[in-house]
Amino acid sequence: MIVIMLSEACTPADRRRIIDLVQFAGTGLRVHTPELLSLSGDRDAIRALLSDEPCVLDIAKLPAAYPRSARLHGRPDCTPVTLGESSIGGPGFTVVAGPCSVENRSQLLTTAEAVRAAGAHALRAGAFKPRTSPYSFHGLGVPGLRLLAEAREVTGLPVVSECVDVRDIEVMASSVDMIQIGARNMQNYTLLREAGRTRVPVLLKRGLAATLDELLLACEYLLDGGNEQVVLCERGIRTFETSYRFTLDVAAVPVLKERTHLPVIVDPSHAAGAKGRVVPLALAAAAAGADGIILESHHDPATALCDGAQALPVEELPALMERLGHACAAAGRTMRAATPARAR
Amino acid sequence: MIVIMLSEACTPADRRRIIDLVQFAGTGLRVHTPELLSLSGDRDAIRALLSDEPCVLDIAKLPAAYPRSARLHGRPDCTPVTLGESSIGGPGFTVVAGPCSVENRSQLLTTAEAVRAAGAHALRAGAFKPRTSPYSFHGLGVPGLRLLAEAREVTGLPVVSECVDVRDIEVMASSVDMIQIGARNMQNYTLLREAGRTRVPVLLKRGLAATLDELLLACEYLLDGGNEQVVLCERGIRTFETSYRFTLDVAAVPVLKERTHLPVIVDPSHAAGAKGRVVPLALAAAAAGADGIILESHHDPATALCDGAQALPVEELPALMERLGHACAAAGRTMRAATPARAR
Amino acid sequence: MIVIMLSEACTPADRRRIIDLVQFAGTGLRVHTPELLSLSGDRDAIRALLSDEPCVLDIAKLPAAYPRSARLHGRPDCTPVTLGESSIGGPGFTVVAGPCSVENRSQLLTTAEAVRAAGAHALRAGAFKPRTSPYSFHGLGVPGLRLLAEAREVTGLPVVSECVDVRDIEVMASSVDMIQIGARNMQNYTLLREAGRTRVPVLLKRGLAATLDELLLACEYLLDGGNEQVVLCERGIRTFETSYRFTLDVAAVPVLKERTHLPVIVDPSHAAGAKGRVVPLALAAAAAGADGIILESHHDPATALCDGAQALPVEELPALMERLGHACAAAGRTMRAATPARAR
Amino acid sequence: MIVIMLSEACTPADRRRIIDLVQFAGTGLRVHTPELLSLSGDRDAIRALLSDEPCVLDIAKLPAAYPRSARLHGRPDCTPVTLGESSIGGPGFTVVAGPCSVENRSQLLTTAEAVRAAGAHALRAGAFKPRTSPYSFHGLGVPGLRLLAEAREVTGLPVVSECVDVRDIEVMASSVDMIQIGARNMQNYTLLREAGRTRVPVLLKRGLAATLDELLLACEYLLDGGNEQVVLCERGIRTFETSYRFTLDVAAVPVLKERTHLPVIVDPSHAAGAKGRVVPLALAAAAAGADGIILESHHDPATALCDGAQALPVEELPALMERLGHACAAAGRTMRAATPARAR
Repeated sequence: MIVIMLSEACTPADRRRIIDLVQFAGTGLRVHTPELLSLSGDRDAIRALLSDEPCVLDIAKLPAAYPRSARLHGRPDCTPVTLGESSIGGPGFTVVAGPCSVENRSQLLTTAEAVRAAGAHALRAGAFKPRTSPYSFHGLGVPGLRLLAEAREVTGLPVVSECVDVRDIEVMASSVDMIQIGARNMQNYTLLREAGRTRVPVLLKRGLAATLDELLLACEYLLDGGNEQVVLCERGIRTFETSYRFTLDVAAVPVLKERTHLPVIVDPSHAAGAKGRVVPLALAAAAAGADGIILESHHDPATALCDGAQALPVEELPALMERLGHACAAAGRTMRAATPARAR
Repeated sequence: MIVIMLSEACTPADRRRIIDLVQFAGTGLRVHTPELLSLSGDRDAIRALLSDEPCVLDIAKLPAAYPRSARLHGRPDCTPVTLGESSIGGPGFTVVAGPCSVENRSQLLTTAEAVRAAGAHALRAGAFKPRTSPYSFHGLGVPGLRLLAEAREVTGLPVVSECVDVRDIEVMASSVDMIQIGARNMQNYTLLREAGRTRVPVLLKRGLAATLDELLLACEYLLDGGNEQVVLCERGIRTFETSYRFTLDVAAVPVLKERTHLPVIVDPSHAAGAKGRVVPLALAAAAAGADGIILESHHDPATALCDGAQALPVEELPALMERLGHACAAAGRTMRAATPARAR
Repeated sequence: MIVIMLSEACTPADRRRIIDLVQFAGTGLRVHTPELLSLSGDRDAIRALLSDEPCVLDIAKLPAAYPRSARLHGRPDCTPVTLGESSIGGPGFTVVAGPCSVENRSQLLTTAEAVRAAGAHALRAGAFKPRTSPYSFHGLGVPGLRLLAEAREVTGLPVVSECVDVRDIEVMASSVDMIQIGARNMQNYTLLREAGRTRVPVLLKRGLAATLDELLLACEYLLDGGNEQVVLCERGIRTFETSYRFTLDVAAVPVLKERTHLPVIVDPSHAAGAKGRVVPLALAAAAAGADGIILESHHDPATALCDGAQALPVEELPALMERLGHACAAAGRTMRAATPARAR
Repeated sequence: MIVIMLSEACTPADRRRIIDLVQFAGTGLRVHTPELLSLSGDRDAIRALLSDEPCVLDIAKLPAAYPRSARLHGRPDCTPVTLGESSIGGPGFTVVAGPCSVENRSQLLTTAEAVRAAGAHALRAGAFKPRTSPYSFHGLGVPGLRLLAEAREVTGLPVVSECVDVRDIEVMASSVDMIQIGARNMQNYTLLREAGRTRVPVLLKRGLAATLDELLLACEYLLDGGNEQVVLCERGIRTFETSYRFTLDVAAVPVLKERTHLPVIVDPSHAAGAKGRVVPLALAAAAAGADGIILESHHDPATALCDGAQALPVEELPALMERLGHACAAAGRTMRAATPARAR
C-alpha cells in the first residue's frame, strides 16, 4: 500500500490534480483524509509522476494493509501471547475450557477443578453474554467476574472472559487474564480502540461473516493502540449449510499463519452446535496447526443456562486431551505442560 | 414461545425435575435464568403437566420470538415512524439522500440543497464512520454533527446519521432526527439497549450476515427499551459473488413486511458499490414494496472522502425521483410530497 | 487474456523456459494444452520477452475470458433472441409463464389459454424435471412434449421447456421453441456442448452457486458451438438466509448488462418459494432492467405435482401484467405486444 | 417420511379431499405422482384420518428421505467399498493420490510409481476434465484411459477417474476401478442414474453449494439403481471467503458419519488452491475421522496442465503419509497397509 502525504497548503484543486495523476499509476485509490491518499501500485512510478507537485510531502510504502499484524521479513513466525503464567503460541499447544457462562459458585468451581485436573491450561466462562434475543439470559455481570477471580485463586488457572460493553473495559482489565472480544463485536471499533489502550491480552474472535483480512484489520485496531498481546480465534463462519451451527473454517489456520505472526486458536464448540461433533473439530484444528483451542465444557450440560447442547461434559476432557496429543504430533507440536494443582 | 416462571424457593432439584417434565411436552428448551424457562410447545399440555409443581408461578405464552416487532393480529400493517415533520411508512415513499460522510461545510450544504431541490425527503451523512481499517478516515465527529444541524436549519430537511459508540448516544439524540445503527453494530447489544432508552427514531440496518429473524430480534432490543420508533433497512448481504460489494436481498422487503409492522427501507448504494448500479437497485427496491430508500449522493463523487465510487452525483437525483415514481406505482404507492424550500 | 501458441516442435525444456519467462511478465498463467499457454498481462511486454523463442508461433490477445458473450466495442447493447414469432431482448419486455411441469392435457391447456389471455408471450412447462430426490415426480417425458406442441398449436404461444439429458437434445430441438438448461446443469458441459451444436434458442439458468463470470463462461460453451441464440436467466442463489428458497440476486441484471450483449431475464418463482413473494420479485426484476421474466403459474396450485407453493394462480396474471407495465416504465421500457388469439 | 398410496380409481376430487385431510395432520406435503403423496407426520394419526377413504391403498413409513444411504438401526456403522484389491471404509485409512489430469505416458507413470512408493493406496488422474472455460484443456479422453490402465498394470494401484458424459459410462466402467462423479455433476441426475446401473464403485463428490442432505439424496440415485458401492467426498464449499479456492467443510465428516453408513473421504487439494495448505487440510480431515483422502500430486507441478498450484510434489508424499499416521491415531484409526510393488 502506497500512502501519499499532502501538505496543509494543498488546495482542493491541487488535491484533485494529484488524484487524477495517481489514478493512472495505481489502483484502488482510497482517500483517507484531506492530508492523506492511499492506493496500491508501484512507489517509484508514483514518485516519478508526482515529482513536480510541491504539496506532496512524502510518499511512503506500508508493508501491508495491516502492518502491525502482518508476518513480515525479520519477524518471528509466531509471537507468543501471555496467558497468566503460561502463554499461547510457540511449540506448545494450549487448551482453554470452561462453561459458556458463569452460573453460580458451585457450577464454576466444580467445572474449573475438572478442567485443571484434565490438564487444560486456562478457564473460560462468560460473565457478560451477548444474546440474539433480549429475553435470554445475559450473564451474571460483575458478580460473575468475582466468581471467576475465585476460581483462578482456587485452581491456579488463568481466566478468559468476554467483554461486550466499552464501559466495562476497566473492570474486565482488572479481573481477567485475557479479555475476549466476541464474533458479534469483531467490528465494534469503539470496543477495539479501548481494548487496544489496555495492556491486557486480548482474544479476538472472527466475525461470522468476516474475511480473514477483515479479522486482521480489526486486530490492527488493537495493535495500533499499543496492545501487542492479541490471539486470533476462528470459530465458524456462516454459510448455506444448516446441518450444524456454523461452518468451521479449518483452512483459516494455515492461511492466518501465512499472514500474521500472532497466535491462532480455534473454538470448535460454536460451530459444532452439538456435543458429538466437538471432538472431531477440536482434533482437526490441532492437526491443521492451530496454537490451541477454546471449548465449552460443563459439569452438567443438561442444566446449562446457555449452549448446553454443545458443551463437552467435563468427564470427557481427559480423553480429548490424550487424542489432542496425537493430533498435535501430526502438526509437529506437543501439548503444553499442565498447570500444577495449587498447594493449599 | 412458552415461558415458565419459577419461584425463588425453587431448588436445583425442583428445577431439574421441571426441566425433565417439560422436555417431554415441548421442544427447544431455552433456560434463561434460574427463575425462567422458555420453550416451544402447547401451553395447555405444559400447564397440565406442571399442575402439581408448587414452584411454578405462571406459564405464559409470548406471541412470537419478537413480540413487539411482530405483525400480529389487530396491529396495523405498517406503523409509520416520525422523521422530522415527515415520516417513513404508510402509502408515501420516502427518499433519504446525502454523502457518505460530512466532509466540510461547503460540501454538506451544497449536497443538502441539491437533495432538497430534487424532492428527496431527508438528508443522510455520517459524522462518525465505522471503517474496516484503523488507518482510514473516521469522520469529523461532533463538529460534523454541528454542520448537520446547520444543513437542517438551512434546507428544512430532517437529518439521519450513524452512532457507533454507546457513549455518543446522548449527543446524537440531541443533534439528529433519526439515529442510524449500522450493519456492523446490528448485534452491538449495548448500543441497542441505550438507543432503546431514548425516544429518538432509529434506523436499524441489517448486519451483512444476519438473517431476517436476527434483524427482528436486534430490533426487539430497541422496542424492549420503550423506543417504538424503529425503521428497518436492508443493505445487502455477504455471499460468494464478488461482482459487486454486497448482494442486495430484495426479497427481504416482502418477507419483512410479512413479519413486522415496522417500516422497511433499502440502501441500494453499499450493495451496488458502483454508481451505475445504484439506480437499478433503487428502482427494484421501490417496485418490491419498500417504504423508502436511503442512498449516497455527493456533489463531486471523485473527491469524496469515502465511498465515492458508489455515490450518485446530485445532478442525477431528479431523474431518479421521476423513475422512482413509476416503480412506486408498480407497488401501489405514491412518492411522498417534497419538503418545501425554507423561507429565508 | 493473452494466448501464446507453441509449435509442435516445442520440447518440454523449451516449454519450461517459456513458462519461466512469461511468469515474470504476466499473472495467472493457465496452461491449456502442450500447444497453448494463456495468462493475463501486457501483450507487447510478453511479445518482447519471447522474441527470441523460435517455437512461439503467435501471441494473441483475446478480448475477454468469454469473447463471444462479452459486450464489446462495436457490438449492440443487446442482441435479441428469437422466441417463436416474437423475441427476447430490445425495448420490449417479455413474460414467459406456465406450470412447473406438464401434468396432463387439461391442466396444460387450461393454464396455457389463461397465460395467453393475460397477455403473456410464451408458455413454460417441464416435461423432464430434475428433482433432488430419486423418489419424486420426474415429469411425463416425451408425452409431455407432445402436449406442449398441442398447447402451442392451440394458443399460438411459443414453448420453453427444460432438457436434462444430453441424449434428449434432438427430440427437444424438434419439439420446443427454446430449450432451457436448468441451474443444476449450468456446468454440465456435455449438455452445453450438444445444445451449442443445435440452432435452437437456449435459456441458460444461473447455477445456484455460480458467479456471474461462471455463467458467462458456461454460456460461452453454447456460443463456441455456433449457437448464438442464448438468453441468460437469474433465478436466485444460495446464501445463509433461510426465510425463502433462494436469494434473488437482482443486481445480477445490471451487472450482466454491463458485461454481455445477450438478453437477461429473471425467474422470480424459485427464489420466492411462496406465492405472495413472486409479484414483488417480478416487479423488482422489471424495474432493475431485465428483458423479461419466466414465472410459474398454475390454474390450481393446490394440486400441482411440483412447486405448487410458489405458483401464481393464473387468475392473478392480468393484475401482474398491469403492474409490470409500471415497473417497465421505471426502467425505460414497454411491455411487448401480446400474442393474438388463434383464429380457429 | 410418510407415503400414501392411492388407487388408480382415485378421482381428482378424491385426491383433493385427501390432500385437504392430511394437511391438517402432517407437514411438508410433497405430491409425487397422481398415485402417491408424501409428507412428514405421525403415521397413526394420518391412518386414523384416512380410515374412511376407499381409494387409499396403503400408508407406509419410509425410514428417511434417503432410505438406502441412511445409517439405520441394524446397519453397520460403515460399509466398506471395494477399491481394486483394497477398499475404503473400516478401521484403515486410505490415500488416493495422483495428478489432476493424465498428460502423457511419462508424466503418469513417474507420478504413479512415486505414489505407490510413498505407500498411498490408489491412483487418481483425469482423462476427461470438466473446465469452467470452453477454451481450457479438457483432458486426453480415451487415450488417457489407456494410459491409466497401463499405470495400474505397472504399479498395481487401483485407478480412480472422473466421468463427465453419460455416454462414456460404459467405457469408464470397463477401464477404471472407481468412477468419480465430480462436484459440478453432483446433480446431473442422468449421469447418476446410469452410474447407478453399473456395478462399478463410485466416488461422489459434494457439489460446491450442496447441503449434506442433498449429497445424500444424490447418492440415493446411485443406490436406487442397485449400485451399493458408493464413497462420498467432501471437497470444499463456496462461501464469501476469497483467501483460498473453496472452504473445506471439515464438519461434514462427523455429520455425514452420523447420517450414512457409506464411507466418507476428503479432497484437500481443491479447497486449498495452493500447495502449502494441502497438508494441514489433509491432516485435519484424517483427525476429524475421514475414511481417507484423495489429493492431487504431480512429479513436476510447475508444468502441470491444470491445477499445478495446488498439486503436492510427489517427493513430499512420504512425509505426509507419516504425519497422516499421527492424525489417524487421534481419530482412533490406523493407516491401511501399502500396495506391494509389482513383481516384474
